Amino acid sequence: MALSMLITGGPTREPIDAVRFISNRSSGKTALAVAQAAMEAGHDVTMLLGCGTIDPPTDLRVHRFDSGDDLKRLLDTHFESCDVLIMAAAVADFQPACVADGKIPRDPTKQISLHLQPTSDLVAIMASRRRHHQRVIAFALEEPQLLAQRAAEKLRRKDVDAIIANPLNTVDADTIKPLWLTTKGHRDSAEAMPKPDFARWLLARIEALY
Amino acid sequence: MALSMLITGGPTREPIDAVRFISNRSSGKTALAVAQAAMEAGHDVTMLLGCGTIDPPTDLRVHRFDSGDDLKRLLDTHFESCDVLIMAAAVADFQPACVADGKIPRDPTKQISLHLQPTSDLVAIMASRRRHHQRVIAFALEEPQLLAQRAAEKLRRKDVDAIIANPLNTVDADTIKPLWLTTKGHRDSAEAMPKPDFARWLLARIEALY
Repeated sequence: MALSMLITGGPTREPIDAVRFISNRSSGKTALAVAQAAMEAGHDVTMLLGCGTIDPPTDLRVHRFDSGDDLKRLLDTHFESCDVLIMAAAVADFQPACVADGKIPRDPTKQISLHLQPTSDLVAIMASRRRHHQRVIAFALEEPQLLAQRAAEKLRRKDVDAIIANPLNTVDADTIKPLWLTTKGHRDSAEAMPKPDFARWLLARIEALY
Repeated sequence: MALSMLITGGPTREPIDAVRFISNRSSGKTALAVAQAAMEAGHDVTMLLGCGTIDPPTDLRVHRFDSGDDLKRLLDTHFESCDVLIMAAAVADFQPACVADGKIPRDPTKQISLHLQPTSDLVAIMASRRRHHQRVIAFALEEPQLLAQRAAEKLRRKDVDAIIANPLNTVDADTIKPLWLTTKGHRDSAEAMPKPDFARWLLARIEALY
């Protein structure tokens, strides 16, 4: 069964001023591996990809985002027509409460306080909008000792269909050690594996949701 | 006259916690164009390059840095043996006063205050260490209306041999509109030009310092 898959990957960048931003170490590698595997399996794939990531394959349909607001606009456009949304993007949890005009000048004598406010929870928003045939899959990046507990909490709180939890050191790495939890109570895990292998492992579990 | 050139490029990343950081929109394109032009002109080039930039040519000698502290360590190692240091890297001016262990959890109800302190002024430090035969060239990225004034101030304050000032919109762009000022009172400017053309324009002016 060929599905229409919307896959997000890479970091968001939240501006501090005209040149500076807050971001995270997401490389987009996991999302790109999943997109590649989904294409090879015959699914119709659209990718939303952050800045500063590795280049996607040329045969992949890609829209680029910078901030979380950009990603939100792209999701508003593309979510309705997908069957599955895989939210592998590392969306910033915080953004500066106000963005400075121009460039904040360097002052070697002064500390600066930057006020950060929580960003919109894009996964929860999309999950709340999904219709009967749509599935939303989230990722959780957590400290190893809290992984299972936080993943289960996140699955409930965001009301998604399934969650992939992985330890902090997955960011920008070439392997991933996944834990898979679904709202229907399925639980599965595996040893660390290369991201292309993980992509096929994940895809089999997503296809089984249908 | 073949010179030994140490060229820095791209952004630094200053960690907030295990996955998040503050950075800037520098792409490293200007520095890579200068490195390429310098190699073609027969100079001996070592490049120090930030993360998240475009891939350098394979025949270029490159060392990667992440934070400003990493860059400082590389400069400590490589500065002594160079004739010219070209500081095209967009070094963060501020860094979190303390780095959180692990990953700061998302809390949708709470604002966070992030205290930022000024980073070490690497250009000024290197300039203060230079010996008679060494030249240090700085870059200044400024708002267009303050460009000339701030560049002249920076030239004096950092005590470098010359400065290239360019407007804010140069970051991550394909062209550059440079203003060149030296401590000996030379001043030169040009219309916006592609970065490879700028690299040759700059190199001619650096060679003329000898």
